[in-house]
Amino acid sequence: MSDGHFADRLIEAVESKRSHVVVGLDPEFGSLPPDLLAACPASAYPIEVERKVACYREFLVALLPALAGEACAVKPQIAYFEALGARGYALYEEIVTMAKELGYLVIADVKRGDIGSTAEAYARAHLDVAGADAVTVNPYFGTDGLEPFFKRCREAGKGAYVLVKTSNPSSAEIQDLSLDSGGPVYERVADLVETWGRDVVGRSGYSSIGAVVGATHPEEGARLRERLAAVPFLIPGYGAQGATASDLSALFDAAGSGAVINSARAILYAYKKAPDQHWLDAAREEAASMRKALWRAAGRA
Amino acid sequence: MSDGHFADRLIEAVESKRSHVVVGLDPEFGSLPPDLLAACPASAYPIEVERKVACYREFLVALLPALAGEACAVKPQIAYFEALGARGYALYEEIVTMAKELGYLVIADVKRGDIGSTAEAYARAHLDVAGADAVTVNPYFGTDGLEPFFKRCREAGKGAYVLVKTSNPSSAEIQDLSLDSGGPVYERVADLVETWGRDVVGRSGYSSIGAVVGATHPEEGARLRERLAAVPFLIPGYGAQGATASDLSALFDAAGSGAVINSARAILYAYKKAPDQHWLDAAREEAASMRKALWRAAGRA
Repeated sequence: MSDGHFADRLIEAVESKRSHVVVGLDPEFGSLPPDLLAACPASAYPIEVERKVACYREFLVALLPALAGEACAVKPQIAYFEALGARGYALYEEIVTMAKELGYLVIADVKRGDIGSTAEAYARAHLDVAGADAVTVNPYFGTDGLEPFFKRCREAGKGAYVLVKTSNPSSAEIQDLSLDSGGPVYERVADLVETWGRDVVGRSGYSSIGAVVGATHPEEGARLRERLAAVPFLIPGYGAQGATASDLSALFDAAGSGAVINSARAILYAYKKAPDQHWLDAAREEAASMRKALWRAAGRA
Repeated sequence: MSDGHFADRLIEAVESKRSHVVVGLDPEFGSLPPDLLAACPASAYPIEVERKVACYREFLVALLPALAGEACAVKPQIAYFEALGARGYALYEEIVTMAKELGYLVIADVKRGDIGSTAEAYARAHLDVAGADAVTVNPYFGTDGLEPFFKRCREAGKGAYVLVKTSNPSSAEIQDLSLDSGGPVYERVADLVETWGRDVVGRSGYSSIGAVVGATHPEEGARLRERLAAVPFLIPGYGAQGATASDLSALFDAAGSGAVINSARAILYAYKKAPDQHWLDAAREEAASMRKALWRAAGRA
C-alpha cells in the first residue's frame, strides 16, 4: 500500500505547480457566499444540519477544481466537519477522496495525539480509512503516542506534521517555557521531530515527518529552519491570522523549498473583500496572488 | 441550556452510586467476545464496516445498562469510533445519547486542542452537538485554544479535563522536561489548570476544569493532589495499563473524593480471564470489584 514518499511527492507537486500554497478547508456556515446559500434554500431541507452539509458540499465541490491549478495541497480542518456531527464527518471523508482524485496532496488537519493503542486507531481512521496523505499531530504524549503515525510514514508513504510552534496568541504559555537545559520547550520538540524523521528522509533530502511552525512567529521560524535541515514545514497563520509573504522568506531553504503555507479564510471567503466578483473568482484570484507572492518570497521569481 | 455544574454533578454521582469508576468505551473488533461476533455473522453484512459497527453497537448496548449500577460515568474513546469512519462517528453520537439516558455522566475522550476558532468548532461538535457532559483537551496551544471549552464549563454546566501527566511510557519526553524556573512542564500545566478553573468552582469545592493524571505515576499524582485542591482528577491507566487501587490512595482528597478512575480493556474484555462466565457477567464483576477496591483505597470502606 505504499504511495511513494510523502515529502518527495509534496515537493514534486510544489515544483510542478510552482506553488507553495495549501488551501485550508475550514467551511463555516456563517461565512458562505450568499448566492451559494440561496441555491440551498432552507425550505428544501426539513433537517437543518442536512442543509448545512449540502451547502458545505456545494461550496467545496466548486472550490476544489477551481483551485487545483494554484495549490499543491489542501488541508481539511476536521473540526468544522465534526461540528455537523456524523453527516459532517462523512463529508470530510468524501472531500478527502475528491481532493486526491483532483491531484491534491491531502493533509488532514486533525491534531490527534494519545497513548499508543489509541493513536493506532487515529492513524487508521485518518491515514488508512479516510485515506489522507498526511495528518497533523500533537507531541504532548511523546514518541509512543506518535509511533503509529510514523510507522505509516515509513511503510505506506504517508506524512505527519508535528505541532512545534503554533500560530495562536497563547502559544507561548507552554511552547515558550524556558528549559533549564537551555532553549524553549518548542525547540526541544523540534529536535525530537528531527530525530523521529531521520529514517524517513527521501530523495528530496526532506523527511516525511514535518513540523507545524506558525507564520506569526517569523524569527522563531527562521531559527528553526536553520536548525532542522531535513524537516519540512507546514506553515499556518498566513492571511486571516496576519502574516504576509515577506515574513516567510527565511522559512524556505536556499533552494526556495522545504515549506508549504496554508491559508483558509482569506482564500475561501475572499468574496467579502471583492463585492463585484463571483465568490469563486475571488477565491481563485486570492490563491493565485498568494502563490505568486510566496514564489517570490522563496526567491524563485 | 445549563445542566447545573459538572463537577458537582459528578461528585453527586460518585456519592449516590458509591463508585469512582469510569468505564472507558474503547471498542476493538479483535477483542469482542466470540459469541457476540457469532450473533453478527459476516454473511449478514455485505459491507464489512457495517458488520463492525453492528457488533460495536450490540456490545455497547448490552454493556451500558449492565454496568450502570457500578460506574458513575463512561468515557467513550472517539478514536475507536473514527477508525470505522462516518458510520463509527454516528455510533459515537448514538452511544453518548444512550449513556446519558441511562444516567451516566459522559466524558468524551477526544483530546482536542487547536487555535481558538477551530477549538470553538470542536467544542460545538462534542459538547453541544454530540452532547457530552465533558471532554478531554490538550494544553499545547495554551489558553486561547481551550477557552471555547471553558466557556461551556462556565455557561452550560459542562466539564473539561486538561492533559497534565499522561499514563503512557513516553510521557516524560515533553511533560517531565525541567524548567529553568523550577519543576517540570506538567507542573506548570497543572498550575495553569488551577488558574483556568478558579471561576468555575462549584458547591462541592471542585472546579469543572479538571486534570488528566495517569495512575501509572502515583508519586507525581500525589504531589499534584496536594498542589491543586480544587482541581478534580480523571485518572487513566488503571487495569490493563498496570496501576492498582493501592497506587491511587493519595490521589483522593481527605474525604475520599476529587478523583474518578477510568478502566477500559480490563472491564470490557474481562471475559478473556474468566472463560467460564458470560462476557457480560465477567465485565460486571470486574467493574464491581474495581468499584470496591477504589472505595477502600479512597478510605471510604
